[in-house]
Amino acid sequence: MTHDHTAPDAAAEQARREEELLVRVLRSFDDCADPRLKELMQALVRHLHAFLRDVRLTEEEWRKGIEFLTRAGHITDDVRQEFILLSDVLGASMQMITMNNRAHGDATEATVLGPFFVDDAPRIELGGDITGGAPGEPCWVEGTVRDTEGAPVPGARIEVWEADADGLYDVQRDGDRTMGRAHLFTGPDGEYRFWANTPTPYPIPDDGPVGGLLAAVGRSPMRASHLHFLVKADGYRTLVTHIFVRGDALLESDTVFGVRGSLVKEFEGHPAGAPTPDGRAIDGTWSRTRFDIVLAPTA
Amino acid sequence: MTHDHTAPDAAAEQARREEELLVRVLRSFDDCADPRLKELMQALVRHLHAFLRDVRLTEEEWRKGIEFLTRAGHITDDVRQEFILLSDVLGASMQMITMNNRAHGDATEATVLGPFFVDDAPRIELGGDITGGAPGEPCWVEGTVRDTEGAPVPGARIEVWEADADGLYDVQRDGDRTMGRAHLFTGPDGEYRFWANTPTPYPIPDDGPVGGLLAAVGRSPMRASHLHFLVKADGYRTLVTHIFVRGDALLESDTVFGVRGSLVKEFEGHPAGAPTPDGRAIDGTWSRTRFDIVLAPTA
Repeated sequence: MTHDHTAPDAAAEQARREEELLVRVLRSFDDCADPRLKELMQALVRHLHAFLRDVRLTEEEWRKGIEFLTRAGHITDDVRQEFILLSDVLGASMQMITMNNRAHGDATEATVLGPFFVDDAPRIELGGDITGGAPGEPCWVEGTVRDTEGAPVPGARIEVWEADADGLYDVQRDGDRTMGRAHLFTGPDGEYRFWANTPTPYPIPDDGPVGGLLAAVGRSPMRASHLHFLVKADGYRTLVTHIFVRGDALLESDTVFGVRGSLVKEFEGHPAGAPTPDGRAIDGTWSRTRFDIVLAPTA
Repeated sequence: MTHDHTAPDAAAEQARREEELLVRVLRSFDDCADPRLKELMQALVRHLHAFLRDVRLTEEEWRKGIEFLTRAGHITDDVRQEFILLSDVLGASMQMITMNNRAHGDATEATVLGPFFVDDAPRIELGGDITGGAPGEPCWVEGTVRDTEGAPVPGARIEVWEADADGLYDVQRDGDRTMGRAHLFTGPDGEYRFWANTPTPYPIPDDGPVGGLLAAVGRSPMRASHLHFLVKADGYRTLVTHIFVRGDALLESDTVFGVRGSLVKEFEGHPAGAPTPDGRAIDGTWSRTRFDIVLAPTA
């Protein structure tokens, strides 16, 4: 027997073994009583094995993968969720959000919720201030909430939240002072307006295995500057989104892939002393943006 | 606009958004300086997103997945490795082993190492006993180690280990008594022989999230009865494998997919009092098996 004759046989036998194993694993889920769970597990197995076979994963690489997941598990606790960060930096969270908020006419696009939403943020009136004294440059935010036919949606509940100029959300600071978050309701013509801070960039927590992965592949841990919105109204799909700042250098490299072109807004800068929309006196510079929101009907 | 006209547009827009996101995530690894890491991450992203899109994963399912990984991380410690168990029950470990031990002529097939190998098991002479007093039915194991040309491999180091009749490896018991493991060397004609216990089935640790998954999909946590081998000789690929017991009802459902048809061996039963191959006196029943091993050359 020479190599010329045996090599193709060996390759065919190798492929047969790998394929036979895959079929055996898929069949092991045949008796699953929950059809959706069965579908999920069989698809997971198909794609997992396709990945392993495509890259011809080595035992050493497999071991490193196990170690990575182990470290991710051990750093995860009540306030740190490394598996969500992993999902985020692989674009899985954003893909999941994109799929579950299907395109519908000109309905505003959704993006990731993030880990910093809090359920019971204080209510402010139209024109109120969400900052609670958080450091930052004041920013006037206004817009309307309408449906996909253009009709205003009065009484829509808008939750807004953001990091401060130090790159921190209130829940990341010591103490329990609420800053940079509030909710308000749209007026009779679907209009809303409030004071916030001009959004600034910040890194995702990068002292764990996900941060190590980003460093190893030469990616930044920074999120593009953004202001979070969650908009609810009866009869409409709840919208979870952000607005981003036109000109932000991080728009193209947002580490969780949350940016959509349609969500990038002009933040008009104003010099110190320039008159504000509501006559409020501000010592320093301030900015102003407009975000007109379109809600899709409930599916 | 009616639904008939808008639906195809929305579907196209939806597909465009999902595809655009995938491309953006893939591109984020473009600057990775390590070409293999770049290949691994881009393939991982491609297969992960294909999985998400194939099954149209919901937010609730995504959350359950994150919770599953979190629980797996929290149960994992120095002696319990839930991520390896997960890799095992999805057939990923066995696929990785299959790929990294390529078919080569009639070389013996490899299977999973498992978590119970220990590096410094005691040496026994040819014909010695590996059980160390572990409970079970005695089993005479014999065979040869040869290369793919049929030449005997003398002096090959064979490590053998197995669970006892209670389904436990020595390292799973209190105390540090060595039982059911040893190493020996093949003789001048590549021959080997030793006493062990007839292999018996046992479950993988099933009190964690992986056990919960197996229960949810209607799969057994049991491994088919097996005896572990690890065979090393200079100039040959190290072989990690098991032999399985012909007729074992679990051969088709081994929960880590370790069974290969070529590794299933006859274990001949003998009644109490039947003479043994080496004249050893045994009160009860005993069994006998033969395993001829073929080593592939070093790649």
